[in-house]
Amino acid sequence: MSRDRLEAFSDGVIAVVITIGVLNLRPPAGDALTDLRPVAPKLAIYLLSFVFIALYWNNHHLLLRAVEHINGAVLWANANLLFWLSLTPAAAAWLGPHLGDTAPAAVYGVVLLGSAMAYSILTRTLLAAQPPGSPLERAVGRDRKGNLSLIGYVLAIALSPIAPWFSVAVYFAVAAVWLVPDRRIARVLPEASMRHPGH
Amino acid sequence: MSRDRLEAFSDGVIAVVITIGVLNLRPPAGDALTDLRPVAPKLAIYLLSFVFIALYWNNHHLLLRAVEHINGAVLWANANLLFWLSLTPAAAAWLGPHLGDTAPAAVYGVVLLGSAMAYSILTRTLLAAQPPGSPLERAVGRDRKGNLSLIGYVLAIALSPIAPWFSVAVYFAVAAVWLVPDRRIARVLPEASMRHPGH
Amino acid sequence: MSRDRLEAFSDGVIAVVITIGVLNLRPPAGDALTDLRPVAPKLAIYLLSFVFIALYWNNHHLLLRAVEHINGAVLWANANLLFWLSLTPAAAAWLGPHLGDTAPAAVYGVVLLGSAMAYSILTRTLLAAQPPGSPLERAVGRDRKGNLSLIGYVLAIALSPIAPWFSVAVYFAVAAVWLVPDRRIARVLPEASMRHPGH
Amino acid sequence: MSRDRLEAFSDGVIAVVITIGVLNLRPPAGDALTDLRPVAPKLAIYLLSFVFIALYWNNHHLLLRAVEHINGAVLWANANLLFWLSLTPAAAAWLGPHLGDTAPAAVYGVVLLGSAMAYSILTRTLLAAQPPGSPLERAVGRDRKGNLSLIGYVLAIALSPIAPWFSVAVYFAVAAVWLVPDRRIARVLPEASMRHPGH
Repeated sequence: MSRDRLEAFSDGVIAVVITIGVLNLRPPAGDALTDLRPVAPKLAIYLLSFVFIALYWNNHHLLLRAVEHINGAVLWANANLLFWLSLTPAAAAWLGPHLGDTAPAAVYGVVLLGSAMAYSILTRTLLAAQPPGSPLERAVGRDRKGNLSLIGYVLAIALSPIAPWFSVAVYFAVAAVWLVPDRRIARVLPEASMRHPGH
Repeated sequence: MSRDRLEAFSDGVIAVVITIGVLNLRPPAGDALTDLRPVAPKLAIYLLSFVFIALYWNNHHLLLRAVEHINGAVLWANANLLFWLSLTPAAAAWLGPHLGDTAPAAVYGVVLLGSAMAYSILTRTLLAAQPPGSPLERAVGRDRKGNLSLIGYVLAIALSPIAPWFSVAVYFAVAAVWLVPDRRIARVLPEASMRHPGH
Repeated sequence: MSRDRLEAFSDGVIAVVITIGVLNLRPPAGDALTDLRPVAPKLAIYLLSFVFIALYWNNHHLLLRAVEHINGAVLWANANLLFWLSLTPAAAAWLGPHLGDTAPAAVYGVVLLGSAMAYSILTRTLLAAQPPGSPLERAVGRDRKGNLSLIGYVLAIALSPIAPWFSVAVYFAVAAVWLVPDRRIARVLPEASMRHPGH
Repeated sequence: MSRDRLEAFSDGVIAVVITIGVLNLRPPAGDALTDLRPVAPKLAIYLLSFVFIALYWNNHHLLLRAVEHINGAVLWANANLLFWLSLTPAAAAWLGPHLGDTAPAAVYGVVLLGSAMAYSILTRTLLAAQPPGSPLERAVGRDRKGNLSLIGYVLAIALSPIAPWFSVAVYFAVAAVWLVPDRRIARVLPEASMRHPGH
């Protein structure tokens, strides 16, 4: 099977997913700057979603670069990841106008958690398809950032009934942790950027 | 003619088709978890459609890999398949909020049937464009899974006036049959995964 | 400049344009088969638009295959073609529910005419960028089908105030002429398929 | 890291961004030519946005052609550019029906300014990733057109409370300056087309 076409298809899906969220930014009926106020939280969530999907694209890209063999299980693990990512614009469409509410914050977290777990499954499926001692095996080590993100998501979902704003803050914090290059980690674990984005 | 660009264009169309269906998952106006109730059946149909289109992508991918010659007839057989696949989000948009109703269930089945027949036509058109004894000819044998799926679709459409829920269950069952790797079939007919997805 | 990336970008745009029109096929609120009646003309126009855009993709593909040199003027002639093609879903969205009306029929024709003229300009710009005696020069000869189509569009637009149904019939007829392989022309002018699709 | 996949992903995103704006051209409810009057300004802004995004695609294409090394910072500078470009359809959706109003004109200018600055950052990030004396360094010189565009955007935003029509005129003028090939500049500064489009 061809890795190149898997990449091309994934790129296409991710390109649509990352962009289609802009349809949530419906312009206001009025023409005053103050009419934009309800658009502001939607823009913030659009930015957050854009960063998460770009993170996944970056890491997906690096993950597949390190891979030599692809099989049917990989195709489906990849489709599973794309499915979860494709739910992001829908979850963002609900969270945007309901930034301080419990259920939209929790549902957005569930989509992030699902995407992170799907990425994890894809990594393991790819590992299982490589011969022992493959470059991918060497590249994927412990995943502190990823585990921290998973804990963050679960915590954010659990606390959303009490403090939905906190949940949203956690999502931004996780994105920031992945965005800011961690020089110390990069030195000790140069393969860190290789692993699960956003979880 | 270039197989690569045909693949690239098909990937682009399928990437849009598989993702655009998420626009059917409009967020509810309210912010309670119970407000998501009408979204649940739409999500189920989105997942079903995602799986079907991913199945077609996987098999389309394998089909073209086995091919050496492409001609004008192949381009149009391919366009015909893309046309049917592109109707999936529209049929899903109707079925999602009308899961227990006859006409939406039947129309969704017609789109599945049309896609399956279009895939069949594409396979035959590709075969006709290859020299005798081509790899594709060896790869495409009898197609039990495909024929079973066709019977399933026709049955589901025919029974939709009496039991629309049964029709929808058949669509899910067909998708599951294609998803679950059939080890016995894979041993006896290793080329099975090569043939018509979803029909 | 790279022909490959120009092709990739054009493929991406055309893939979105050909698929986005399906958003015009909004499902009816009701669940009866008769509720689909207003969708039927929209589906017919979606099919017509799909065929036209697929025709352009096919011919665009062949046109660029025959080309060795690309310059800035080609990029803009190509962007001009993509712009006209991208108007197709909008024109189709108006024509679909207004099949028997003058203005929507005329506007759809203007978009077809604009696309055909943009394709013509792209061909000439490509010719100007090639050295004398290039394969493209040999491939592009007289263009009877193209000229016939142009006459058809102008006639359809001119007659739309009197007979809008006739205009729509002309659009279908032109698409059919390009779809049906003309064996006689193919023998005499093997390069016919090379030239302007849909005009 | 692979430049090719960065290009492919960028092409995908830009293809969606450039086309999705056509969804703003909702057809009128009526069927008379005069019903199109409110669509006309939206079409003008769609054309303007199409030209700007095509300009960015052209220059992005040339920029990456001249590059040999890509790193993580480049991926994020590129994602930042794609984010700003993706806001264009949303800003256009507001400006289209409010051509003579202050806030929509200013907001559209802010998106153009943001895109231009993001392109500038991408250029510098790419330069920082190349070894000294790279082809890119030689290609990127002074950027008179770019600086002029930036001044134009700032001026247009600043004057939008007094003369919103002037602001929109400036946007069209900047697009025209970048579209029209400046032979004199091309002779003196052959690398001009290499630099910031639209700013």
